[in-house]
Amino acid sequence: RINSARLWDSLMEMAKIGPGVAGGNNRQTLTDEDAEGRALFQSWCEAAGMSMGVDKMGTMFATRAGEDPEALPVYIGSHLDTQPTGGKYDGVLGVLAALEVVRTLNDLNIKTRHPIVVTNWANEEGARFAPAMLASGVFAGEIDLDYAYGRQDLEGKTYGAELERIGWKGVEEVGARKMHAYYEYHIEQGPILEAAEKSIGVVTHCQGLWWLEFTLTGKDAHTGSTPMAMRVNAGLAMSRIFEMVQDVAMKNQPGAVGGVGQVTFTPNSRNVLPGKVVFTVDIRTPDQAKLDAMRAEIETRATGICAELGVGCVIDPVGHFDPVTFAPELVANVRTAAERLGYSHMDIISGAGHDACWAAKVAPTTMIMCPCVDGLSHNEAEEISPEWAAAGCDVLCHAVLETAQI
Amino acid sequence: RINSARLWDSLMEMAKIGPGVAGGNNRQTLTDEDAEGRALFQSWCEAAGMSMGVDKMGTMFATRAGEDPEALPVYIGSHLDTQPTGGKYDGVLGVLAALEVVRTLNDLNIKTRHPIVVTNWANEEGARFAPAMLASGVFAGEIDLDYAYGRQDLEGKTYGAELERIGWKGVEEVGARKMHAYYEYHIEQGPILEAAEKSIGVVTHCQGLWWLEFTLTGKDAHTGSTPMAMRVNAGLAMSRIFEMVQDVAMKNQPGAVGGVGQVTFTPNSRNVLPGKVVFTVDIRTPDQAKLDAMRAEIETRATGICAELGVGCVIDPVGHFDPVTFAPELVANVRTAAERLGYSHMDIISGAGHDACWAAKVAPTTMIMCPCVDGLSHNEAEEISPEWAAAGCDVLCHAVLETAQI
Ligand SMILES: NC(=O)NCCC(=O)O
Ligand SMILES: NC(=O)NCCC(=O)O
Repeated sequence: RINSARLWDSLMEMAKIGPGVAGGNNRQTLTDEDAEGRALFQSWCEAAGMSMGVDKMGTMFATRAGEDPEALPVYIGSHLDTQPTGGKYDGVLGVLAALEVVRTLNDLNIKTRHPIVVTNWANEEGARFAPAMLASGVFAGEIDLDYAYGRQDLEGKTYGAELERIGWKGVEEVGARKMHAYYEYHIEQGPILEAAEKSIGVVTHCQGLWWLEFTLTGKDAHTGSTPMAMRVNAGLAMSRIFEMVQDVAMKNQPGAVGGVGQVTFTPNSRNVLPGKVVFTVDIRTPDQAKLDAMRAEIETRATGICAELGVGCVIDPVGHFDPVTFAPELVANVRTAAERLGYSHMDIISGAGHDACWAAKVAPTTMIMCPCVDGLSHNEAEEISPEWAAAGCDVLCHAVLETAQI
Repeated sequence: RINSARLWDSLMEMAKIGPGVAGGNNRQTLTDEDAEGRALFQSWCEAAGMSMGVDKMGTMFATRAGEDPEALPVYIGSHLDTQPTGGKYDGVLGVLAALEVVRTLNDLNIKTRHPIVVTNWANEEGARFAPAMLASGVFAGEIDLDYAYGRQDLEGKTYGAELERIGWKGVEEVGARKMHAYYEYHIEQGPILEAAEKSIGVVTHCQGLWWLEFTLTGKDAHTGSTPMAMRVNAGLAMSRIFEMVQDVAMKNQPGAVGGVGQVTFTPNSRNVLPGKVVFTVDIRTPDQAKLDAMRAEIETRATGICAELGVGCVIDPVGHFDPVTFAPELVANVRTAAERLGYSHMDIISGAGHDACWAAKVAPTTMIMCPCVDGLSHNEAEEISPEWAAAGCDVLCHAVLETAQI
């Protein structure tokens, strides 16, 4: 069993960096707070006897040596970046639980055939720079490095420039590392495990996603003196698209979701009809055919809505991954470990995207989940119990040992 | 007749301060650019032999002395502040045409019984600080000075602090001045005069307005892992309110308008359903009963929409004025002047709000309008011709003389 108190202490220590406004965290990608969090993580890795490598996307890889010089490493990790109003566990639990696995192996003086690499993937959240899981996407060869460097935040700062600014642009070629396997432990971020009263989610699949960035072009005009019939109203077109996305998601129940989290009006003045409205639609479902059909329906209907209002409409897919099926042998390891340790468990499909989704393209991969209170995540009130955190970490430790010894 | 070339030159000179991104201006209230524009205007007033007074809201009053020490001044003016993506004429034309009237009287050595005061009202646009026409509202005793000082921009900076910062907080009590009459010349900001091929709008009324600021409270939640049924979706509630406002405006045709120019999502991240959505609904009509009924219907229906989605809804009326009827004797002066000068004219209702709407509460008031190309305003592409600008200024000069001599 891992050291539950030590794991919890580390979580609370990391949560001091980039505090939020309501008990959570704001440690967004490539900010000064991100740099501070990275430095703390690095110091812990060094104290645990690991050596650090950093790739050109800023992903951190801390290696605990194995006994067989030929054996590829088993990777475990997640991400330390957060949403602007994020919780203390989303991603962080996966990284610090991976560190706790190494600390436990050190305590018990357990050697493994394969090296173990604790990983902090850069820009998982995609809050500051779309898409999410950017660094793991480049690692898996699914996203181009130059495209990633050119991604901009709302202030127009690029990923490449900000990575240099905070001093975490490494020298390793992205994706040069080969993995024996990849495990990721994460909070569920949904309500299923808690409702079913299970400690462990054995993650068999992850649903697929499209992020469709809409740029609607209307005509800046006075809200008072512009007659209704003369308006080219991009805000109205936006609201109709919101309602349509809701409709498409509801038609595809069960299992599909659709919504909008980010909106920018220009010039954003109370008495100016917006000349430009930019927003991102997020749709997901584990069913590949449904996912593609939803995207097609949304694009067709949005184009119709805009045409009717005379509003220009450009749709840019700024994030995408197909539904993922995780490696059956690793999934079995997780299930066996939970059983051996006596933790209640159930199979589950990940509702959120994770770096594991991209890792699955290049290595046998799976995930472990623990419940979170009220299914709440991407909210500063995100909460888990120390016992939940520890149970998943125990399972992670056992499953990883299974893979790292062979 | 006024000096058309001099008027146009002054307009173009002022437009150099706070240039926009597309040929217009960004000289928002109480910015450094606003201060620069004020200084230029002051230098012109002094060169024209006027003395400057500034009140505690930052409104500028430049006086040309009259012959009768007992006579109250005739005020003429408008505003020099602009929208973030504003035009070169909205407001500016009214101030610089007022200055041109004084320059012309100086040229012709015409003395008037009443003093003439050229006025630059502070924060007419309301883009940075709601409501619009803030300083004239305080002047008319309709808005409290402390309320005005406490108004915040999107960054949380207050009107009071920003007024001190740019160095234009005057010593005069706001509203202490008494007016014999107030004339304001403005571009129409709508399509009516151009379509009717009239040079002069004789403004008989101004439509009334409500700005309703909605603060919707949802629940920050993950866009991927939060099932549709568990969402408390403030963004969806917002989109339904947009559509409902459109419906209410359309039901009240002809003559009513309704729309939304400003929206803020919090935390505004692509994969977070917003916990908070703030936006301002702008509704207007010249009909008092309709205006009140529209507001009531919008509030009732919005409350219902939010209740159905479990979204919290607070509605704050951040801007308001009732429909205005301008002073018949001044309106007649404008009409007579247009006829005397041989300019085509028609009666018109102002679609936009103006400082004249508040001035009308404390003095006989009216307005003069000139057409603008395609009815476009609150847009950097806002355009008028030098001839249009001059015609209205001629009418202003004649009408003001009529009032200032008696
Ligand atoms: N786990 C997580 O919240 N990842 C961010 C990417 C997503 O939106 O699913
Ligand atoms: N004239 C003008 O655009 N004033 C701003 C106030 C309003 O929105 O009507």
